Amino acid sequence: MELLVYLAGEIHSSWRTQLKEQAQKQNLPLRFTGPMEDHQRSDHIGEEILGSQPNNVLKDEAASSINNLRTQILLSKSDVVIAYFGEQYKQWNSAMDAATAITLQKPVILIRDEKLHHPLKELANKAQLVVQTPEQALKALSYIFE
Amino acid sequence: MELLVYLAGEIHSSWRTQLKEQAQKQNLPLRFTGPMEDHQRSDHIGEEILGSQPNNVLKDEAASSINNLRTQILLSKSDVVIAYFGEQYKQWNSAMDAATAITLQKPVILIRDEKLHHPLKELANKAQLVVQTPEQALKALSYIFE
Amino acid sequence: MELLVYLAGEIHSSWRTQLKEQAQKQNLPLRFTGPMEDHQRSDHIGEEILGSQPNNVLKDEAASSINNLRTQILLSKSDVVIAYFGEQYKQWNSAMDAATAITLQKPVILIRDEKLHHPLKELANKAQLVVQTPEQALKALSYIFE
Amino acid sequence: MELLVYLAGEIHSSWRTQLKEQAQKQNLPLRFTGPMEDHQRSDHIGEEILGSQPNNVLKDEAASSINNLRTQILLSKSDVVIAYFGEQYKQWNSAMDAATAITLQKPVILIRDEKLHHPLKELANKAQLVVQTPEQALKALSYIFE
Amino acid sequence: MELLVYLAGEIHSSWRTQLKEQAQKQNLPLRFTGPMEDHQRSDHIGEEILGSQPNNVLKDEAASSINNLRTQILLSKSDVVIAYFGEQYKQWNSAMDAATAITLQKPVILIRDEKLHHPLKELANKAQLVVQTPEQALKALSYIFE
Amino acid sequence: MELLVYLAGEIHSSWRTQLKEQAQKQNLPLRFTGPMEDHQRSDHIGEEILGSQPNNVLKDEAASSINNLRTQILLSKSDVVIAYFGEQYKQWNSAMDAATAITLQKPVILIRDEKLHHPLKELANKAQLVVQTPEQALKALSYIFE
Amino acid sequence: MELLVYLAGEIHSSWRTQLKEQAQKQNLPLRFTGPMEDHQRSDHIGEEILGSQPNNVLKDEAASSINNLRTQILLSKSDVVIAYFGEQYKQWNSAMDAATAITLQKPVILIRDEKLHHPLKELANKAQLVVQTPEQALKALSYIFE
Amino acid sequence: MELLVYLAGEIHSSWRTQLKEQAQKQNLPLRFTGPMEDHQRSDHIGEEILGSQPNNVLKDEAASSINNLRTQILLSKSDVVIAYFGEQYKQWNSAMDAATAITLQKPVILIRDEKLHHPLKELANKAQLVVQTPEQALKALSYIFE
Repeated sequence: MELLVYLAGEIHSSWRTQLKEQAQKQNLPLRFTGPMEDHQRSDHIGEEILGSQPNNVLKDEAASSINNLRTQILLSKSDVVIAYFGEQYKQWNSAMDAATAITLQKPVILIRDEKLHHPLKELANKAQLVVQTPEQALKALSYIFE
Repeated sequence: MELLVYLAGEIHSSWRTQLKEQAQKQNLPLRFTGPMEDHQRSDHIGEEILGSQPNNVLKDEAASSINNLRTQILLSKSDVVIAYFGEQYKQWNSAMDAATAITLQKPVILIRDEKLHHPLKELANKAQLVVQTPEQALKALSYIFE
Repeated sequence: MELLVYLAGEIHSSWRTQLKEQAQKQNLPLRFTGPMEDHQRSDHIGEEILGSQPNNVLKDEAASSINNLRTQILLSKSDVVIAYFGEQYKQWNSAMDAATAITLQKPVILIRDEKLHHPLKELANKAQLVVQTPEQALKALSYIFE
Repeated sequence: MELLVYLAGEIHSSWRTQLKEQAQKQNLPLRFTGPMEDHQRSDHIGEEILGSQPNNVLKDEAASSINNLRTQILLSKSDVVIAYFGEQYKQWNSAMDAATAITLQKPVILIRDEKLHHPLKELANKAQLVVQTPEQALKALSYIFE
Repeated sequence: MELLVYLAGEIHSSWRTQLKEQAQKQNLPLRFTGPMEDHQRSDHIGEEILGSQPNNVLKDEAASSINNLRTQILLSKSDVVIAYFGEQYKQWNSAMDAATAITLQKPVILIRDEKLHHPLKELANKAQLVVQTPEQALKALSYIFE
Repeated sequence: MELLVYLAGEIHSSWRTQLKEQAQKQNLPLRFTGPMEDHQRSDHIGEEILGSQPNNVLKDEAASSINNLRTQILLSKSDVVIAYFGEQYKQWNSAMDAATAITLQKPVILIRDEKLHHPLKELANKAQLVVQTPEQALKALSYIFE
Repeated sequence: MELLVYLAGEIHSSWRTQLKEQAQKQNLPLRFTGPMEDHQRSDHIGEEILGSQPNNVLKDEAASSINNLRTQILLSKSDVVIAYFGEQYKQWNSAMDAATAITLQKPVILIRDEKLHHPLKELANKAQLVVQTPEQALKALSYIFE
Repeated sequence: MELLVYLAGEIHSSWRTQLKEQAQKQNLPLRFTGPMEDHQRSDHIGEEILGSQPNNVLKDEAASSINNLRTQILLSKSDVVIAYFGEQYKQWNSAMDAATAITLQKPVILIRDEKLHHPLKELANKAQLVVQTPEQALKALSYIFE
């Protein structure tokens, strides 16, 4: 039995790479998907596919329609979602991904530094598990196969 | 036919009061619910009901379990959700409320200043309507009864 | 027991008025909702609420986001949908409303002249009942209360 | 991870063939299904299987019951739907397929020439992505695998 | 709190009348709906509304599309279903109504003489309660209000 | 793409064998499941596993709990259901299986001799396709793969 | 807006009476339902309605089919569930009621003495709120109306 | 066709091992998952991954969030659930697992000694099958493949 894990959240650090490498080292039957991690490409994908847009709001709208297409397909196929919140950016899309998964009754593991707990408290309360590091998230997934 | 409207989002301005007053002036058959608007009370409700907690993370967890109880019940009864994003705070709970409603196939009207569009773009793309002011949101609801 | 009926489809004839008058004459416990019937207003509602748009596609997008808000709320509250297809216009929104209701397991009564049957055949096959006149649709609803 | 794509809509041009060939050239892990593309066969399949029918409406009803069987099975297995609207025909079955997928929370990519935007505006507003060419639709799907 | 009870099954005896009278005597807050009980009218309603049909199968199809419209609406509004199986007739529509309610997670009370148990055994196993008389069914509903 | 077909209904004729042989001859990617076809074994399976029961009703109840376990698992995995109604027996379990599938939005193909149409009319109206022979049902499934 | 509260769990103490009296004193718009609280009547209701049973297991089965009918109807209508676990009895039906509500996405408030936390830990983790006294549960509901 | 079986309930006896060995001997296409069977590890997994907790209730909460993550993922993938109730312990988590599966419309086979029937009667009434030994449960699953 293989599990499909959607890795939502922060795209400006290497947490996904570390998680994938550790999973591979431990031979865990996990496959990972997630959002476009190249921030520039994610912001420009709308104009890349649909052509130049009249203004920045419409450029954003074009990009988000394609980013959301990606997320909706990959999230709907996943068995579990890991969402990592960092200290920069608004990350409302990460909160949206986590809440969408929870409402679809898919379990969510939230990774955040304890400093961020206060603004995340309602989302943390809905998540199935809250941890501080990707290592802890992976240990929890590993436990499923013991 | 009366509609029940859940007013999610920013609790530090008077947008809810203005919206309710305008709805009443126009005799629109709308009833409004929403989160606890007293920030202090919302943060302390956990300890108020469950007693003193060992640390701040647990104080937050206690409060959020009661705030989420409130939100889950009121959101599940609502016909439409209006979510207002301001410029302060992380507002991850507002993003969670909006995404929860969307996933439950309840329509969401997003209110935000255009300055906030970029970080909100994925959520805006999923909302049924994006406006800049509470007046515009109310006009859209008023149109339903014409 | 009162039934809420959503009247989808053609907005350029008086079929809704006739249906409502006949229902009232027969004292049937039916309440009716439906789309904005003033074609001009329906096309301009986006710019009316959101302001002038850069081009016609965006004017349409603004209008449809508000028309769909109206439809989603009213359709989700309805017990049964009557969809009238006339000979003019593309009426893809009417087909969308009917298919949405069917997928939500709400029964649909389709009204169409037999001349239109061929292009409507797949939708007709999914509808619970296909008739030629509003009178027939009302007779079927009246039968529920006998 | 392979995605199953249902190709709804226009059957009188070669857009499906082009899309499949391009997907194959790029080695994208996509499998495609869709409606019967031979218009005559689609219209006659009812009588072919069930025998001669008393009139044209019943011939249509017989055909649509088998075409809808095909669509329901293939659509329910698909991960994403691409719907192409051309300038000919009523295409109410295409609108039905798209609306059905949207209501089942499957993402829809709409392909249409901008000339058709006005009558398609409500459906376009509900689709996850609106493009003008099959190439753009494929680019969006390709982006999911980057 | 009032309960809406759909009375499915046999239409050739007076069990519904007896049940309603007893419920009224006991002042139970129950409202009852059910199928058309006039067998002739139920068989002819298709031709009455849609006009003469080419043959008996099509006459049946016309009638059943209207009888099913009635059942779908009333069943979807009900809180509990009572299904009475008698010794005459095939009663496949009664089995369909009971199975539909069970699949929608609405509880079903089955009334049948013990002689009929063998052919009803799979449906009886899925029903929430199996009794022999309408009095027993009413006692069970009355128990809910104690 | 392979389809899983549940073959509900009559167990006293060889229609399943014929259907499977024809599907194999045509190399159709269909896999078939269905109920226990040995009538005696189906009636006795309760006592075989759970031991002797106090009376016939309880013997039936024991058997049906195991037959329904089988049906629930196999039906929930199927893509399409074929239900065959013969002239003997009450076949209320077959009507239950068909109605369960329809309510779960799985398409049902009904096979019945036209003589049986009248009592089957409500179920036939809900089925996606009604045919007279297993050959016709297989032709309809074959059409999906063209 | 009135909330319907199902009071699951322990039936051998007066916690429901106290809760209802306090709610009334505070004029909270709450209506309460719950299981049969007379233990003897709950155990005998099966034989009372269905007559004498062959043995104790079947007497239990008869009673539970009627108790579950009551619970399914009342739980499905409730907005929130309060489940009280005491120190006596196995209370597997209480755990079942709480888990059923949670799976239906209805919020559950768990009341238990801290001594019972260890065996309740998995259920507590799924509940929206865990408290020690009925007063605390009522305070949480009261907070919804502030 | 392979079935995935979740083995809920008692972890202090060897019933799972026996069941798996017998299934293998009979070459049944069954795969089994279940909870962590090492009681100590299950109780300590929270502190093992999340670190030392302030008190026993919080140690339990940490452990249950990870045990529930495991259960939610494995249960959601399973085709059928077997739940074994022994005579020791409160086993409220087992009752929760069984009720969760039933509400998700997954069939549950309950194994219990007849001595335990009275407190289990409501859960037994909801289960698809109640047996006394693992052998009987396996016979029922084996019957599906005949």
